Amino acid sequence: MGRVTVRRPVLRIAENGHRTRPDTLAAEEPLEIRVNGKPLSVTMRTPGHDVELAHGFLLTEGVIGDPEQLATARYCDSPGPDGRNTYNVLDVALAPGVPMPDASVERNFYTTSSCGVCGKAALDSVKLRTRHSPAADPMSVDSTTLIGLPDALRSAQRVFDSTGGLHAAGLFGARGELLAVREDVGRHNAVDKVLGWALLERRVPLTGCVLMVSGRASFELVQKAAMAGVPMLSAVSAPSSLAVDLAEEQGMTLVGFLRGSSMNVYTGAERVTIAETA
Amino acid sequence: MGRVTVRRPVLRIAENGHRTRPDTLAAEEPLEIRVNGKPLSVTMRTPGHDVELAHGFLLTEGVIGDPEQLATARYCDSPGPDGRNTYNVLDVALAPGVPMPDASVERNFYTTSSCGVCGKAALDSVKLRTRHSPAADPMSVDSTTLIGLPDALRSAQRVFDSTGGLHAAGLFGARGELLAVREDVGRHNAVDKVLGWALLERRVPLTGCVLMVSGRASFELVQKAAMAGVPMLSAVSAPSSLAVDLAEEQGMTLVGFLRGSSMNVYTGAERVTIAETA
Repeated sequence: MGRVTVRRPVLRIAENGHRTRPDTLAAEEPLEIRVNGKPLSVTMRTPGHDVELAHGFLLTEGVIGDPEQLATARYCDSPGPDGRNTYNVLDVALAPGVPMPDASVERNFYTTSSCGVCGKAALDSVKLRTRHSPAADPMSVDSTTLIGLPDALRSAQRVFDSTGGLHAAGLFGARGELLAVREDVGRHNAVDKVLGWALLERRVPLTGCVLMVSGRASFELVQKAAMAGVPMLSAVSAPSSLAVDLAEEQGMTLVGFLRGSSMNVYTGAERVTIAETA
Repeated sequence: MGRVTVRRPVLRIAENGHRTRPDTLAAEEPLEIRVNGKPLSVTMRTPGHDVELAHGFLLTEGVIGDPEQLATARYCDSPGPDGRNTYNVLDVALAPGVPMPDASVERNFYTTSSCGVCGKAALDSVKLRTRHSPAADPMSVDSTTLIGLPDALRSAQRVFDSTGGLHAAGLFGARGELLAVREDVGRHNAVDKVLGWALLERRVPLTGCVLMVSGRASFELVQKAAMAGVPMLSAVSAPSSLAVDLAEEQGMTLVGFLRGSSMNVYTGAERVTIAETA
């Protein structure tokens, strides 16, 4: 596990008194992703699965569409205060012929030159970039299967139990079978890691799969799911307005407030089979 | 309230059946902040309090330190698909003599030229930038006062109750009196809005105040609090390792897992007065 968690002393104050005891924290460190030697992005992430994170980030930003488009990924020598490599700089080399991404790749998702800065521009930008629209995916999932996903995700979270401080993203098959789960202090990183895993496993587009996230569903998470061809995104908490708009436009099923034995289906309800006993 | 919430139909599936009903969602829209006409940042935010958001963002990124350094803030004409202004582009003009920020202002927080990309570089970068270190602030807060803050924050959240989808950040005095609360789909935006409010109210540095956030405490949130001179940050959920490191280096009190009648004090415990009956 290494740097995934860090131990620190903490003063615990509770009704029955107070004492100092050790506490386990989720590790957070910067990761710089360089493309062909040029810095592209710095994200604060939990160390580990960095190569997957880079693959997922470049997939969901539209830079690459299959694993062959990324030739190599290696840590640069990035010495910390003690002179040892921090393993916080990852340089990826694109395959010949793959265009270098614009340095302001993130900004381009929200603005286009043809109109102002608005939700419509953000939706249009995803439409232009996605190579794996989930609209035609005929998969369906039983509502009782969906109800089981939050517990399945939680029990697969190795680090959350010790820290209480990590977001999780899990990929499931249509019958609820867990394919992969990744954790991170940043929820966008947890999603990039699990989608990067899928890309490396040659499972993109993620036809027939459900992406389950531990928190809320924002525009950014729906965008990432769309870029990987995920037909169904489910979240424990609420979606935003633009998340719902994007899911609808992309033909993706979006489930929110999936907790206990209930859920809200915001878009693509045709993919949710309602168990008659439910 | 306007665009703060959006109504959408939703298929609600629960144990006692399923039905379609209207649901209220937290609005999410891009906001582009321009400085002297030049795009600096695009963030996905809940519309409203955008001028405060811009002030808070520029304060916490180290571009301005007092409200006089920002001469004007006005919405650009940014027409949407219907030709009407989206109010999603805000242009701020810096006062004469205030240097233009680097376009990669965020990246600079995590990397320095003197060493690699690492947590130490991130801490050093905040040390170089903050104008209002909270280290010397002698304030203290009673633990019973802290225990009351999550409920006070929640009851001040106007939009959360209808959507369940917004993060909140609240500023409190040392006796638990609420000064301001702001909500947003992005927790960094909620913090920027409430700190921008404080800057406009000439309350920065926020000596004697507690910043309370509804979620986790990341490096980014501690950094923002440090840039505004906040001596105490408390969070309902877990901090990350680097959040604790930064709070310690900045002399800030960091409280996590503040829920029910208990809490963890990670740094600066001398500012928490423990009630003997607790």
